[in-house]
Amino acid sequence: MPELRKDIVTGRWVIISTERSKRPDDFRAPEFAEIKKESLTFCPFCPGNESKTPPEVFSVREKHSAPDQPGWKIRVVPNKFPALQPGPPPPKKLKGVYQWMEGVGVHEVIIETPDHHQEMSDLTTKHLAKIIRVFRLRTIHIEEQFHHKYVQIFKNKGKEAGASLSHPHSQIIATPIVPKRIKEEIYGAERLFRNHFRECAFCRMLKEELGSSERLIYQNARFAVLAPFASRFPFEMAIFPLEHSAFFRKITDEDCTDLAEALKQALARLKLQLSNPAFNLVFHQAPNPQVSDKAWPGIDSYYHWHIELMPILTKVAGFELGTGFYINPVPPEVAAEFLRKELPVKS
Amino acid sequence: MPELRKDIVTGRWVIISTERSKRPDDFRAPEFAEIKKESLTFCPFCPGNESKTPPEVFSVREKHSAPDQPGWKIRVVPNKFPALQPGPPPPKKLKGVYQWMEGVGVHEVIIETPDHHQEMSDLTTKHLAKIIRVFRLRTIHIEEQFHHKYVQIFKNKGKEAGASLSHPHSQIIATPIVPKRIKEEIYGAERLFRNHFRECAFCRMLKEELGSSERLIYQNARFAVLAPFASRFPFEMAIFPLEHSAFFRKITDEDCTDLAEALKQALARLKLQLSNPAFNLVFHQAPNPQVSDKAWPGIDSYYHWHIELMPILTKVAGFELGTGFYINPVPPEVAAEFLRKELPVKS
Repeated sequence: MPELRKDIVTGRWVIISTERSKRPDDFRAPEFAEIKKESLTFCPFCPGNESKTPPEVFSVREKHSAPDQPGWKIRVVPNKFPALQPGPPPPKKLKGVYQWMEGVGVHEVIIETPDHHQEMSDLTTKHLAKIIRVFRLRTIHIEEQFHHKYVQIFKNKGKEAGASLSHPHSQIIATPIVPKRIKEEIYGAERLFRNHFRECAFCRMLKEELGSSERLIYQNARFAVLAPFASRFPFEMAIFPLEHSAFFRKITDEDCTDLAEALKQALARLKLQLSNPAFNLVFHQAPNPQVSDKAWPGIDSYYHWHIELMPILTKVAGFELGTGFYINPVPPEVAAEFLRKELPVKS
Repeated sequence: MPELRKDIVTGRWVIISTERSKRPDDFRAPEFAEIKKESLTFCPFCPGNESKTPPEVFSVREKHSAPDQPGWKIRVVPNKFPALQPGPPPPKKLKGVYQWMEGVGVHEVIIETPDHHQEMSDLTTKHLAKIIRVFRLRTIHIEEQFHHKYVQIFKNKGKEAGASLSHPHSQIIATPIVPKRIKEEIYGAERLFRNHFRECAFCRMLKEELGSSERLIYQNARFAVLAPFASRFPFEMAIFPLEHSAFFRKITDEDCTDLAEALKQALARLKLQLSNPAFNLVFHQAPNPQVSDKAWPGIDSYYHWHIELMPILTKVAGFELGTGFYINPVPPEVAAEFLRKELPVKS
């Protein structure tokens, strides 16, 4: 059973995968976040190999095709080597001065397309919108069924980003605690709401960004893609819904279409302008409403869900890891100017 | 002039190197943290090439040898491509909703030995103790002379750790703000002191760790090397002074010798047991006493300086970056058992 452990001083929680690495010599082998490569040529995510993953928990598939058989367009399966074991939220336990929990949660893989060779940026807007609707559905399902505090949707693309399989896929990890980074955003936004702006800090920031447009990369009716003012990484992007909302799960089908278009524009720009780098894509949303309503009453008025898109072009070094203080060699204004160029992106 | 920029919601500061990357196509070139490679064979840190670095600000050298000439054992020079421009702490400025500052600070390189082919773990304890004394001296000098809020001592070893030159060296970056990670430790330790332990949380934790010894790797009269309970990375280590102290700058010469021995033991274990991986080494100390005394009165009673040592054996992926939630495939107890084996380490 994996363990969740808390650093007593910083309050940072860590997943310790006690089951998956028996011997120190083994530690390179288990790539926690993905289904293990079974061979260099064999792909467990390709149609026909459905039996090589745990049984699907959801799929978008052709009428009359059976579960765990070909005919799917999008397929959701439990991770074969999950970072957290499936189950309901575990209680906090004590071990001397330390707090820990059993490593229980949810870890799912969303196989984005049957086509091994397509990348997320190659998918049609229509297909991307369907993937986003699957993210919404799984979020609601996990929150209501399993009551975990936080549902993390993310995608690692490319080896440098931590992906061990190249077949296009995203992941969901639901955790029994709210991750530190999300808590920081909630507390920061709450403080700004209360003491300064009397409105959502993200909304205020968006107003300024759309007004000046020097860091704006793409915009449609419902979403904007920006280079954040304090970008940590070269060509970092953020995607914000223009209409205020704390909960990703509340997006409408029309929102999904516009988000798909914004996401495609962002990804295509990375691919075409920056020679297809590895990247990490991370959703930041309010915690499970069952939790948020108690822990952060009013969160819906001051938190604003969004997506962070981090291309991997430089190394994160000791200074960053040790201090949380990032050094970015590309000003976001320069990045935005470079990325906002009109591109021949097909929907 | 580089800029320091604050993310309004999380309060995270970032260094934007506006000067060093004019064109997006350039962004891979400037390795911010190090003196640029001038060629594959030429090393600006080797004896005889002293004119290829900015003039030294300090050195340990043979009697009668002149500054910026061979004859040195340890040499401190300003970074030729500094992440922050040299100067006194700049004022905070506003740009719409955003806070920023001119990117002013200190960025120095400590060349640890004239011998290009020695690694830090190969140096004698005596020489390592001298390097630690240089760290102490530079810390005091920078704090008293330039009044920056925080002095960050760190070392990136190996390309994967962000180092661009292989000649053994450490770095110091002094910043006009206290880094987020350090602030988190200070606030966390203060809260634990006040609400729970009525003593330093690090001291309490050390008592437990030395008592059970399942995560203890090495110990001498004044220092302990541990695998932290909530380690983020496989084989992560932390070095703590056994005697409580918030300020690294207060270590005695005897402390330096024992710290050198602990550091050598930790580094030799990495090298011999784990095939010499790249690593990041980061000092965490209380901010400049001039600042600490005002901002955190009593910090000397609840904060405890220490060193984090992070071997680079796995990739940090999107889940970690987006959530601050690390997944570690090697339990620290397993790592400690593996690392604590008796080794033929020469002083």
